[in-house]
Amino acid sequence: MAGLIEARLEALDLELPEAKPPIGSYVPFVHTNGQLFISGQLPMKDGAMAIKGQLGGNVTLEDGQAAARLCAMNVLAQAKLALGDLDRITQLVRLSGFVCAAPDFGDHPKVINGASDLLADILGDKGRHTRIAVGCSSLPLNAAVEIDAIFAID
Amino acid sequence: MAGLIEARLEALDLELPEAKPPIGSYVPFVHTNGQLFISGQLPMKDGAMAIKGQLGGNVTLEDGQAAARLCAMNVLAQAKLALGDLDRITQLVRLSGFVCAAPDFGDHPKVINGASDLLADILGDKGRHTRIAVGCSSLPLNAAVEIDAIFAID
Amino acid sequence: MAGLIEARLEALDLELPEAKPPIGSYVPFVHTNGQLFISGQLPMKDGAMAIKGQLGGNVTLEDGQAAARLCAMNVLAQAKLALGDLDRITQLVRLSGFVCAAPDFGDHPKVINGASDLLADILGDKGRHTRIAVGCSSLPLNAAVEIDAIFAID
Repeated sequence: MAGLIEARLEALDLELPEAKPPIGSYVPFVHTNGQLFISGQLPMKDGAMAIKGQLGGNVTLEDGQAAARLCAMNVLAQAKLALGDLDRITQLVRLSGFVCAAPDFGDHPKVINGASDLLADILGDKGRHTRIAVGCSSLPLNAAVEIDAIFAID
Repeated sequence: MAGLIEARLEALDLELPEAKPPIGSYVPFVHTNGQLFISGQLPMKDGAMAIKGQLGGNVTLEDGQAAARLCAMNVLAQAKLALGDLDRITQLVRLSGFVCAAPDFGDHPKVINGASDLLADILGDKGRHTRIAVGCSSLPLNAAVEIDAIFAID
Repeated sequence: MAGLIEARLEALDLELPEAKPPIGSYVPFVHTNGQLFISGQLPMKDGAMAIKGQLGGNVTLEDGQAAARLCAMNVLAQAKLALGDLDRITQLVRLSGFVCAAPDFGDHPKVINGASDLLADILGDKGRHTRIAVGCSSLPLNAAVEIDAIFAID
C-alpha cells in the first residue's frame, strides 16, 4: 500500500523517476542522526541532461524553473530509495539551489521556486523548508541547475 | 526583560532589523534536531537591496564588508523571530558566505569577515563558527553578498 | 598507538599535513550534536596556495584533481586536530566541492573525485559520502578548489 505522500504524487499526476546513479565517487544519500542528506541532483531525465546552459544566457526563466522541478523530482527519488517510504519524512529542512547564471542575472529565487513550489505541493507542511539560491559560473555536465537537500526523518 | 545577547546588542549600539520575509516559496528558518537553519539572507535594509553588484567590479571591499554585516544582522533577526530569546543559542555552528565576485577576485574571506567579526562581537564564544567563503557569478536581486547560518540550540 | 585510520594513511604512504590556521575570523571546526563541521579548506601546501586559477582556463583537470586532494588532506588534518583520534569518525556525511570554473566547464565531478576517491581510500566504508560539486566565479586567494565537510562522530 502506497503512503500518503505517494498518494499525493498520484493525485498530482506525478511519477517518481528512477533514482539517478552518482556521476562521481560518492553516494546519493546518507542517513545519520535523524537527518537524510541528499547529494546534489541535476536536471537529468531519461538518462540525459535535459536542460543545459546559463540563466540570463541561453536558458529562459521558464526552462530554468523546469530544470529546478526535475532536480526536485530527482531529490525525491533518492529519498524514496533511501527510506522506502516517503512518509518517514518529517520535514524538508533545507534546499540548496545552485543556478548556472550570468553576471547580471538576479532571478535565482524564481528559478528555484520551481523546486520549492513542487515540493510544497507534494509534501504539504512538511515541505516548508529553508533555502539558499546562488549563481554559479558553471555546473556539472553543463546543467542549468543543481539542487541538494537535507530532510529530517522520524 | 531582554537577555544577555540583546543587552550586548544594545551595548554595541546595534538594533536588530525586522526579519525579512522570504523572497520565494520557502520559510526563513527551520528548527529541528537541536539545529536552527536560517535561509540565505541578503544585504536588505529598510525594505530594499542596500548593496548590489560585484566584488572586484563595482563594489569596494569596504562596501562588501558592509553588505556582509547587513546579512549577519538579518540572520540574527531571523534567529530572534524563530527563538524569541537569542540566549537559547548555544553555538553558531556554520556560516556560508556567498560573494558575487569577479574571476580575478581573491578577498572573499575579508568580505565575509564583516559578518564573522560582527557575530563574534555579539555572541562571544558562542559566535565562534565554521565557515565557507566562495565566489558566485551572480546572486538574487543582484545582491553583493548572501549568507546563511546553522545555529545549535539548547 | 596510532588508530586504524592513521595506520591506513601510513599504508597509503600519506602524511597528514599541519592543520592550517583559518584565513579569517572563524574557527576550523565545530563539534556539535554528533556532527563535526569543518570549515572550507583550500589547496594550501607548506604554507602557500599550491594550485591557483580556473578549471577550463589555466588549470588542467589533473591539477584540479591534485588541488582537490590537497583540500581533502587539509580536511582530515582539521578532523585530527578536532578529535585527536580519527577513528572517532563514524561517517563522512557530506563534502561540498567548490571549483573555480569557466562558464563552459562541465567536469566539476571529475575534479572533486580527487578528494572523494582519496577519502574513500583512507576511510573505507566510513568514507562513503554525499556531495555537491559546483562552479564558482572565483575562490579565496585565487584557489582552484575549496572543499568543506561534515562528519558524523561517535
